[in-house]
Amino acid sequence: MRINGQKVKRIVVIGGGTGTFVVLRGLKNYPLRLSAIVAMSDSGGSNQRIRDEFGLLPTSDIRQSLVALSEDNGGAGLLRKLFMYRFSKGQGIAGMTFGNLFMAALSDILGSQAEAIKQTGKVLRIHGSVIPVSYTDTNLFAEYENGKILTEEHLIDEPLHDGTLKIKKIYLKPLALANSDALKAIKEADLIILGPGDLFTSILPNLLVKGLGEALINARAKLVFVMNLMTKYGQTYNFTARDHLKALEKYLGKRVDFVIINSGKLPRIACEQYAKFHEFPVVNDLRAKNYYQIILAPVCGQHLLKKEKSDTLNRSLIRHDSDRLAQVIVKIL
Amino acid sequence: MRINGQKVKRIVVIGGGTGTFVVLRGLKNYPLRLSAIVAMSDSGGSNQRIRDEFGLLPTSDIRQSLVALSEDNGGAGLLRKLFMYRFSKGQGIAGMTFGNLFMAALSDILGSQAEAIKQTGKVLRIHGSVIPVSYTDTNLFAEYENGKILTEEHLIDEPLHDGTLKIKKIYLKPLALANSDALKAIKEADLIILGPGDLFTSILPNLLVKGLGEALINARAKLVFVMNLMTKYGQTYNFTARDHLKALEKYLGKRVDFVIINSGKLPRIACEQYAKFHEFPVVNDLRAKNYYQIILAPVCGQHLLKKEKSDTLNRSLIRHDSDRLAQVIVKIL
Repeated sequence: MRINGQKVKRIVVIGGGTGTFVVLRGLKNYPLRLSAIVAMSDSGGSNQRIRDEFGLLPTSDIRQSLVALSEDNGGAGLLRKLFMYRFSKGQGIAGMTFGNLFMAALSDILGSQAEAIKQTGKVLRIHGSVIPVSYTDTNLFAEYENGKILTEEHLIDEPLHDGTLKIKKIYLKPLALANSDALKAIKEADLIILGPGDLFTSILPNLLVKGLGEALINARAKLVFVMNLMTKYGQTYNFTARDHLKALEKYLGKRVDFVIINSGKLPRIACEQYAKFHEFPVVNDLRAKNYYQIILAPVCGQHLLKKEKSDTLNRSLIRHDSDRLAQVIVKIL
Repeated sequence: MRINGQKVKRIVVIGGGTGTFVVLRGLKNYPLRLSAIVAMSDSGGSNQRIRDEFGLLPTSDIRQSLVALSEDNGGAGLLRKLFMYRFSKGQGIAGMTFGNLFMAALSDILGSQAEAIKQTGKVLRIHGSVIPVSYTDTNLFAEYENGKILTEEHLIDEPLHDGTLKIKKIYLKPLALANSDALKAIKEADLIILGPGDLFTSILPNLLVKGLGEALINARAKLVFVMNLMTKYGQTYNFTARDHLKALEKYLGKRVDFVIINSGKLPRIACEQYAKFHEFPVVNDLRAKNYYQIILAPVCGQHLLKKEKSDTLNRSLIRHDSDRLAQVIVKIL
């Protein structure tokens, strides 16, 4: 694909969840070939029912990325709103997201969840493609420093245990095989973005999929890590920027080329709120190295987010600013 | 609206259910301005839950008409399939139709069921408009010749009592007021079609709505009655064509201009199946009168319908042929 004689650049965003949503939403407005590779090991809430009762793979992260890349206007815009909608009424229906039910129905009609995801993308007129990292029905496990093992993303995400406990390692059981579309996208990419997002439940689970790590090692694309704004109790408690990067590179088996770190001031009122949950701004203790470049930029959003009827965590009060983040990313290209 | 200098004719189809679906589906392919006025007193199955748990008016008949008028191709075609889909899995979800959940979600997002119906029509790219006969939350009652009174459409539809009992009268409680869009469509119509369909539960309930009868009496449009192919146990047991017409005209308060009656042979195997349920081909005992014209035409379908995962009754084995019926109707214009 070429625009004005220029070869259109390919960007792959690896993740799932809200962080990926924010990155995609900003990049969507540029003439790029965008792909989102999305973790498929979520098992909380609406996803749990999709897995247990419909016998499908989890769709919440897929849905968020589809919405991020969808067209805002016309019929597709209305469908976009519907896709973000969570039912508040109806016995057995309240709590389900419309988008998940949409994809469950379509999977049944088309006889394939993969085809359902593709067709949903068409209906939402997405700018880019959303690729499940794997079609293996698998679960994420976390082993903590005290030997305790937890499974199910939402338990790791919202720990009932002491959230200062460090995660020793995470793994998938059974082993998941990479979706060939994901491998192809990585191979062809000019730029690959990891993060922001929940490190151990949204970003790293992708790297656990068999075949993906190898593809990333062989990729010619530059690797960009977008550093989280805040630490996360139960996952990255007290993590500095260096701790984040270290954890990422351990699972990546490769060094990144760029780290984007926010230099903007975080709203004080949000920080106070986060502090109540033992979560704090990520301290930047990185120094530029010969193998990576630090990009310091005011990429945080300035609006406090309200509690929404969506799949996002209630406590996600500040996010990166989609447009600012996209501006920084496209400059790297 | 004009096409090739010709004023486009306006046809209004009054009903609900499968019969209306069949009429609309055929007429959709002609350059006409089509409106479907649809009964809103259904209370069975998926509709019951839409009413009780979501606090909305019943949407199954609306949904069927929207599907009938929807575009077959592209994204809208896929949505059409989804709209006809009934979930078979999911606790509290199995048995619900996707289309009803779609409209429930949209009503909540837009804050108005009326607006949700309009927007759904846009998403499905319907050729025409679908108009609820009323927005009053009402129920259909049937009083039988033995004095027994039943409410809820599905009980009248699929009687647990002796189905040879005659319905003495039907009424709505509380009284429903006509939707002004319905009155406008009737006023502007060139042709108004009643039937085919369940006489006492799909067709006549529309005429019980306050304001509608008057609008029909004052309408300049020609009135066409499409005679049912089969009698219906519990509603029109042993009814001849004349009995059907008499019941219609009693509630209509006016005489019709045309009666379309099937002259084609009904598949024997289907008739045998119907006979088991005490249902028989409608006997044509009509003679042309100076106030109505009889149109005899082979308008029945020749394909036996299979049991479908849709809102239609399982026993609906033969229907009118959409295309043949439409050909006959447009000749009257």
